[in-house]
Amino acid sequence: MAKEKKLVEAITSMEEDFAQWYTDVVKKAELIDYSSVRGCMILRPGGYAIWENIQKELDTRFKETGVENVYMPMFIPESLLQKEKDHVEGFAPEVAWVTHGGLEPLQERMCVRPTSETLFCDHYSNIIHSYRDLPKVYNQWCSVVRWEKTTRPFLRSVEFLWQEGHTAHATAEEAEERTIQMLNLYADFCEDILAIPMVRGKKTDKEKFAGAKDTYTIEALMHDGKALQSGTSHNFGEGFAHAFDIQYTDKDNKLQYVHQTSWGMTTRLIGAVIMVHGDNSGLVLPPKVAPVQVMIVPIAQHKEGVLEKAAELRGRLGAFRVKVDDTDKSPGWKFSEQEMRGIPIRIEIGPKDIEENQAVIVRRDTREKIVVSLDNLENEVEKVLDVIQKEMLERAREHRDAHTYQATEFEEFKEAVATKPGFIKAMWCGDKACEDTIKEETGATSRCMPFKQEEIADTCVCCGKKAKSLVYWGKAY
Amino acid sequence: MAKEKKLVEAITSMEEDFAQWYTDVVKKAELIDYSSVRGCMILRPGGYAIWENIQKELDTRFKETGVENVYMPMFIPESLLQKEKDHVEGFAPEVAWVTHGGLEPLQERMCVRPTSETLFCDHYSNIIHSYRDLPKVYNQWCSVVRWEKTTRPFLRSVEFLWQEGHTAHATAEEAEERTIQMLNLYADFCEDILAIPMVRGKKTDKEKFAGAKDTYTIEALMHDGKALQSGTSHNFGEGFAHAFDIQYTDKDNKLQYVHQTSWGMTTRLIGAVIMVHGDNSGLVLPPKVAPVQVMIVPIAQHKEGVLEKAAELRGRLGAFRVKVDDTDKSPGWKFSEQEMRGIPIRIEIGPKDIEENQAVIVRRDTREKIVVSLDNLENEVEKVLDVIQKEMLERAREHRDAHTYQATEFEEFKEAVATKPGFIKAMWCGDKACEDTIKEETGATSRCMPFKQEEIADTCVCCGKKAKSLVYWGKAY
Repeated sequence: MAKEKKLVEAITSMEEDFAQWYTDVVKKAELIDYSSVRGCMILRPGGYAIWENIQKELDTRFKETGVENVYMPMFIPESLLQKEKDHVEGFAPEVAWVTHGGLEPLQERMCVRPTSETLFCDHYSNIIHSYRDLPKVYNQWCSVVRWEKTTRPFLRSVEFLWQEGHTAHATAEEAEERTIQMLNLYADFCEDILAIPMVRGKKTDKEKFAGAKDTYTIEALMHDGKALQSGTSHNFGEGFAHAFDIQYTDKDNKLQYVHQTSWGMTTRLIGAVIMVHGDNSGLVLPPKVAPVQVMIVPIAQHKEGVLEKAAELRGRLGAFRVKVDDTDKSPGWKFSEQEMRGIPIRIEIGPKDIEENQAVIVRRDTREKIVVSLDNLENEVEKVLDVIQKEMLERAREHRDAHTYQATEFEEFKEAVATKPGFIKAMWCGDKACEDTIKEETGATSRCMPFKQEEIADTCVCCGKKAKSLVYWGKAY
Repeated sequence: MAKEKKLVEAITSMEEDFAQWYTDVVKKAELIDYSSVRGCMILRPGGYAIWENIQKELDTRFKETGVENVYMPMFIPESLLQKEKDHVEGFAPEVAWVTHGGLEPLQERMCVRPTSETLFCDHYSNIIHSYRDLPKVYNQWCSVVRWEKTTRPFLRSVEFLWQEGHTAHATAEEAEERTIQMLNLYADFCEDILAIPMVRGKKTDKEKFAGAKDTYTIEALMHDGKALQSGTSHNFGEGFAHAFDIQYTDKDNKLQYVHQTSWGMTTRLIGAVIMVHGDNSGLVLPPKVAPVQVMIVPIAQHKEGVLEKAAELRGRLGAFRVKVDDTDKSPGWKFSEQEMRGIPIRIEIGPKDIEENQAVIVRRDTREKIVVSLDNLENEVEKVLDVIQKEMLERAREHRDAHTYQATEFEEFKEAVATKPGFIKAMWCGDKACEDTIKEETGATSRCMPFKQEEIADTCVCCGKKAKSLVYWGKAY
């Protein structure tokens, strides 16, 4: 048992130090490794396979709405980055600059893309001429670079993987519709696949994207009560179209500017999965995104027929992502590893089970043990995976709701931020000054103005003037 | 007809100017667009979708052999790049250097990866300890950057998309086996999916990869008789393991160096598809890699029932990648577009066809028209797509074989290179001096020493000394 103990002892408990627990899990579950490049992580097979599942599912959903994938260069010439004023101000301080190609200095330096609005706009200005060329609904899967000082695996790194959608439309209505459509697609995906409930809403002007008219967001609550912005969708209006001169001839032969959107999700989602579902034994993965859904662990595998039976069961479970752990480690060690890696179901099969034509299914999320007849294994596995997926979402929603508070007075608000980690719902007058005050005095930021507005008071929680909207506030990653 | 004429006239004929024909096709078939970044291209939806199909098929084949995907940082610190001597000499002159992060200069400059051996080796030295950790069979899908002076869409660009596999093994035999396995996987993929026959062989020392013990290659012949290196697989032996100190404890508790391989294919393959199969009407795509396999063109679509029937047929052909062109362009224009984009099958359906319960299938590759009963449409489409795929490979093989020559004397060799574009088979003594002479005097390079060796003479075609092996020579992209 020494080995098993060692594996579990390697994780700090989340109650003791949540940040350290997180770091331990990403390392011990072999999701990432640190690299020789400051702030850049290596996505190991266990981590990258989660991203592949996210990609596959999102990409299918994108294409169902008419999205086409493209690939843009990773470099942006400095003059191109500077074309949209707010945008360059937002990104220039945190980009990596390429100054030399081969042995020679470049005539104009280029940054590694922190995001690709400028490249898409430049391309759109070349290919959009007529109303027949619209809409353009493009997306790309790539990595981007932002020169962050403080980094953390998945949550904030110098380079990260993401998708970025960039669209151009004939009308303002169509652009707004696409912005909201993608935000809802993101939220549905997170709930259906990652089992993470989302608050959907609009960012305040202070928190919106550099160059956007409006930014919409989905916000999740982590186990420690901090918020995580999990995806954003921006309506650019005609701003970039003016800066990049993207015009089309409409049906009446008049020149019009296009209306644009952009929207993105990143490997940060993996951080959300870890911090919403994980426990003190490691990762807990929702079945729909787990690279391995079922781990078969043979018991007393040296005994005749055990490994053969395990292989037979793997064959029968071909509809799922299933593996057999037939290494020479002890069963206890294998259990710990399966738990650490968050594999949703473990199937234990030993000589006695075989004799009794049964197996033991162990749920990772609840540790419940279910003895099932081998005759019915496929159906049982399917049923248990469905239940796990459903209950993980329910538990996350209960946790989120139990950690969502409301405040109508500033003192009450300050106490809530200080003592009850979670979302705080409070009314806001719409002034940036109050947002600034709240941030300075409490450390909480406005997460969003939710689509589902409630009127919990008439007056702003900060200044007491007439309230304009309900805002979700919270400390955030 | 003015419009149709214009579309076709936009392509230079390949007999007149093959290079210009190529450029016209990649632009007019909307595979790429040029960008504001020198030497970097934009992969448009039509081009990127081909890459997606290549990725999907290759990735499935990789995983069947035990490959796991990972993601490494895009930056390499200068000191890391310098660890393996031959490797840094090969790549340092053509990398892009990042010197500033945000507003500050970096302490150590970093290059954007031209290839990632150094990063994988650095990682392997951290995670490989025991024989139990072997083999590691990792791959990544990403883009790389090489500061090329002269660039050409798909064939040679500053940034390009590729996959790079990097493996570590306990024994030399296992590494060699993996090197050959991946080369054969590449060649089979190119023949099965891209309908391009490959010569499989080994590179001479002069042509091998910087840092490799042996490089294997697959070489294809383009329509203009030039060769295209289409994929490579390298056996590194223990070279990188020594440079990066990658050692493991074997079963006898002794420290051993690992044996490594790497292998890659790129978007260059799309260039090969264009130059092997294209014609003067544009692209011709093999059905297995075509983003759209069937384009249904309604004839007299304003007449009652035509668009409805076209939509019904699309529904029935759901097993294929199928679209209906119901835009307000003329049928002739639609035909030209379908041909330009290389869509394997066009189905024409008009009022008369509907009356007679038939449709006309037109093959893109041969332009053959086949009248089929609507009752049997699904089977007919499947059959025709299969035949196209098969015959495209056959035609490409016939063209390759008809343009493969042999020479035993140097004069004969020189004349062949000058007058007959294609592969030239000739014997070689094994000396680099002869390889250099041949390149200087003829412009042809050694493409490979094919696995299928023949002895067409006893003596080297260049120096007349005893020959060691048969070599395929040719001018190359």
